[in-house]
Amino acid sequence: MAEVVAGIDIGGTNTVIGIVNKQGDILAESTIPTRCQSTFSVYVKNLAVEIEKLLEGLGHEHTLQGVGIGSPNGSYNLGAIVDAPNLEWKGILPLCNELTKHTGLPTVVTNDANAAAIGELLFGAGVGMKNFVVITLGTGLGSGIIVNGKLVVGHDGFAGEFGHIVAKANGRQCGCGKKGCLETYASATGLRRTAFKMIADSNQPSMLRNVTYDKLTSKMITEAAQNGDPLARAAFEYTGLILGTRLADLVAILNPEAIFFFGGLANAGEILIDPVRRYMEEYMFPVFKGKVRLLMSGLQNKNAAVLGAAALIWDELEKKKAN
Amino acid sequence: MAEVVAGIDIGGTNTVIGIVNKQGDILAESTIPTRCQSTFSVYVKNLAVEIEKLLEGLGHEHTLQGVGIGSPNGSYNLGAIVDAPNLEWKGILPLCNELTKHTGLPTVVTNDANAAAIGELLFGAGVGMKNFVVITLGTGLGSGIIVNGKLVVGHDGFAGEFGHIVAKANGRQCGCGKKGCLETYASATGLRRTAFKMIADSNQPSMLRNVTYDKLTSKMITEAAQNGDPLARAAFEYTGLILGTRLADLVAILNPEAIFFFGGLANAGEILIDPVRRYMEEYMFPVFKGKVRLLMSGLQNKNAAVLGAAALIWDELEKKKAN
Repeated sequence: MAEVVAGIDIGGTNTVIGIVNKQGDILAESTIPTRCQSTFSVYVKNLAVEIEKLLEGLGHEHTLQGVGIGSPNGSYNLGAIVDAPNLEWKGILPLCNELTKHTGLPTVVTNDANAAAIGELLFGAGVGMKNFVVITLGTGLGSGIIVNGKLVVGHDGFAGEFGHIVAKANGRQCGCGKKGCLETYASATGLRRTAFKMIADSNQPSMLRNVTYDKLTSKMITEAAQNGDPLARAAFEYTGLILGTRLADLVAILNPEAIFFFGGLANAGEILIDPVRRYMEEYMFPVFKGKVRLLMSGLQNKNAAVLGAAALIWDELEKKKAN
Repeated sequence: MAEVVAGIDIGGTNTVIGIVNKQGDILAESTIPTRCQSTFSVYVKNLAVEIEKLLEGLGHEHTLQGVGIGSPNGSYNLGAIVDAPNLEWKGILPLCNELTKHTGLPTVVTNDANAAAIGELLFGAGVGMKNFVVITLGTGLGSGIIVNGKLVVGHDGFAGEFGHIVAKANGRQCGCGKKGCLETYASATGLRRTAFKMIADSNQPSMLRNVTYDKLTSKMITEAAQNGDPLARAAFEYTGLILGTRLADLVAILNPEAIFFFGGLANAGEILIDPVRRYMEEYMFPVFKGKVRLLMSGLQNKNAAVLGAAALIWDELEKKKAN
């Protein structure tokens, strides 16, 4: 009987459930809708049923040890989802408690970026490292921080909101209600905003001038930059300036060994990383110059969310054993 | 036989040595010069001799368990002082190794702000807390970070350089070689620079207009502000804006329970803390609003440097026991 855990990735539309062993192999996987469930309790019950189904499919040769969950606004400390803007249910949702009632097993939740960080530590390119940061670059900018080989969750379970440090006083309007947050510049959405501002501010010719804001994607800007479009290149340069200087700040505070990039915009590769690295080094506190590696996530293009959630509960089970 | 440790505070001019018990009482204390020692090795030998003398003075009823040291540019990971600008000896000084040769006991070193943080954790107002930051406001700005009840030292042992995050792009020249570092605004020196800039920029009457830059102290600006001097008050308001916004960033990253202030400028009290708090809350990520306490260090006006150094080695000895 091999030991396994369930790793769950809750998205606004769908929830992905995977059965994962200690080596980080996903042995079985399925999806249930997150939307259109009658109540939150019914949704949680369906999660438990789905986990059981997956185990049955594996011929019951595996014993489930616990459940790890990555969710937007997941609070590790509360074991709950708190005011997630993209879910139908509002307020504090006691996810871990309710799921444990069905499974009888330890359950842990955290946000997506934290799950990505612990996934990187156990199954990704961060194996063997003790101090690093994972930056997820998608619609927004998330971060998960590993210090002394452990995830930093903070006093209320919400550490790692690096996307909401102020990059520019009185800058762009952010979804969080503040202005000038880092993620309004350094994310897929931020890159689009930068490109559109540059279209307005300059007369530079660009293949992006005949695309509407709603249709423009970070992938289109990336491809334009790779094809030498000067405006698209300038947009990446500006993104690198904003993100690079703030990463220099993050390094000054935490002195990590490496910073990993993950998510859709990270696929831009050196087009993005090169200016980030240049500006980070330019603004770096001397003692850290040339020492911090900027790397692609080892989980990029894998089912990182499920692996991260699984890593979270494996890590928790290890901690319990140690105590 | 009661167990004690030695806590050592290395300053540019003098070195203070204290014998400290587990409760944080300083049982004996003395000072030797840091300057004018023939070599670094002779200095280290004199440290060992002085520790022995202090123990003799206590009638040898105490057994020494280890030595903790706080030093400018002290690297916890290397057990060394690295390129300290205010010491006569340059390069990497293998302090722990050399002192252990004399005492045969475990020896740990870190920088002053880190020692202050671990001192706060064991003997100060941070007892019982697991996530907090200590900000030391003196000539510069230092920080020590506690996460999950442990000091954050980082990959190279130099975490906590919060004073060298960029507060203003292309801002004031910093001693580290960069421009616009937080400590060029938020420190005793930073406050002086701000006051002088305001004297130049405005026509506001102020009692500070008849003081030279070299004679101006943060204490004078504090007293002027307490007496209602509008320019001095404006200088604190600006300092609060710069420090408060950056503390909001720090909270977003680390989600601490409290931030402690320590050092000369911290004596300004509410004249400083009030604007810091207002701007921190204004720029705070919503989930953290109203949750983070700004407090005076519990070691303020005590021999914090010696207590911090002693706490460092007590903590280290505890960790060794646990493993």
